[in-house]
Amino acid sequence: MIFRHRQKVLFKHCDPAGIVFYPRYFEMINDCIEAFFDVALGWPFEVLHKQGAVPTAQISASFQRPSRHGDMLDFTLKAAAPGRTSLALDFVVTCEGAPRLTAQSTLVNVDAQGRPMPWPDTLRTRLTQTTGGTP
Amino acid sequence: MIFRHRQKVLFKHCDPAGIVFYPRYFEMINDCIEAFFDVALGWPFEVLHKQGAVPTAQISASFQRPSRHGDMLDFTLKAAAPGRTSLALDFVVTCEGAPRLTAQSTLVNVDAQGRPMPWPDTLRTRLTQTTGGTP
Amino acid sequence: MIFRHRQKVLFKHCDPAGIVFYPRYFEMINDCIEAFFDVALGWPFEVLHKQGAVPTAQISASFQRPSRHGDMLDFTLKAAAPGRTSLALDFVVTCEGAPRLTAQSTLVNVDAQGRPMPWPDTLRTRLTQTTGGTP
Amino acid sequence: MIFRHRQKVLFKHCDPAGIVFYPRYFEMINDCIEAFFDVALGWPFEVLHKQGAVPTAQISASFQRPSRHGDMLDFTLKAAAPGRTSLALDFVVTCEGAPRLTAQSTLVNVDAQGRPMPWPDTLRTRLTQTTGGTP
Repeated sequence: MIFRHRQKVLFKHCDPAGIVFYPRYFEMINDCIEAFFDVALGWPFEVLHKQGAVPTAQISASFQRPSRHGDMLDFTLKAAAPGRTSLALDFVVTCEGAPRLTAQSTLVNVDAQGRPMPWPDTLRTRLTQTTGGTP
Repeated sequence: MIFRHRQKVLFKHCDPAGIVFYPRYFEMINDCIEAFFDVALGWPFEVLHKQGAVPTAQISASFQRPSRHGDMLDFTLKAAAPGRTSLALDFVVTCEGAPRLTAQSTLVNVDAQGRPMPWPDTLRTRLTQTTGGTP
Repeated sequence: MIFRHRQKVLFKHCDPAGIVFYPRYFEMINDCIEAFFDVALGWPFEVLHKQGAVPTAQISASFQRPSRHGDMLDFTLKAAAPGRTSLALDFVVTCEGAPRLTAQSTLVNVDAQGRPMPWPDTLRTRLTQTTGGTP
Repeated sequence: MIFRHRQKVLFKHCDPAGIVFYPRYFEMINDCIEAFFDVALGWPFEVLHKQGAVPTAQISASFQRPSRHGDMLDFTLKAAAPGRTSLALDFVVTCEGAPRLTAQSTLVNVDAQGRPMPWPDTLRTRLTQTTGGTP
């Protein structure tokens, strides 16, 4: 499944060169993941974080073209079939169809003490459904 | 050459789980690069950005262990021999010797219109000197 | 006229105490002003900033109750009749009707060199209309 | 007592107009307060936040002149005699002696449940000493 998310480039995202300061892209990616857990998985971050967390274990990004103030960015998030405690995500970001950046990240489900923990069954089912696999 | 930079984990860097929110690591990495250009290369960002910029073309990071409020982080930046218009950087971040994250990024030197532009000779010389190569 | 803006409290806004880190409120207020100029005044920041800027000359805020991750915040922005080059704004932020913070700010319209500059007539008309005054 | 703190204006602080984006000033002020509690009061935020917090109840700021990338900002923090649970702070920020901004804030000492709590005696003593009063 592909989850879609839009974000207009706002004043606060831009640097003195008038383009998005790249650490702000990682905040946008985090917002996209938060919206995915809320809307697509029905497990909002504010609920999830009461009993654990989903820290990012690794992330990489490639910036094809700069984004400017006022650009409307289209994020697509594609989730792979979940691992036992991990989840691989793939991002493509475009503006009016033209490429801006791509990114890949891996999340890990951890308990309140930060130890890796299997995804809950309901989440695994939802993740597997949304990715077109079988639970 | 290895450039060293320290950053204490401050309140503003931390998330509700009490650990560094990973987009803040990318701000810290950017601060480390800014200090490297200023101190090691003698080409401060505030001068450099009057005639161009050094946007990040790609970056990847792997987070080994979480960092907590109050931790003193030691950044080491290692610059590869410069390409014609690009520069590869390698980061290792530790706390009291224990690994926290590693990252790799590639910068590109661009002019005021965002077009790739060869590194100025003085910078190339300094970069080559600091990386132990020959200009 | 009252302009309304909603912002859910996201993971990125919260500090280790699990509540909104107050500098993030000022980013939210800036986003609210940016939406007001775009939607209510038809003068988006990305257009406005091509020929000038609207820096904040002063701002004050009073925080009545903390906001937590997941809270839906309702911002109301009330603009006073515009001065020659300035504009006073009044903000009330609530969550499900309960008070969270109030703020007052003054913007100044400046040209590309940062010198105060009268509001353009079309903007003055729109501001005066939206505030119920006479142009 | 006056506590002094320096902060160079970095790339990450600046907006498309090339000046400090004002929410970043509030992060700088928070960093200044964090340094004051650590260095002047010997009660670092990472220790303090294990048993409570010191949220900001109100803050106001007046921006006299914009600050640019590369500017070295000198912060002075002046603490008033502490109230039972509150503390008033006064900030003056200059660059090479020229005014940039002034700010006033009020902090409140709260316990882990967010309820106002008297300052601990050792902190009150230190605060009273640093402000030239009598405990």
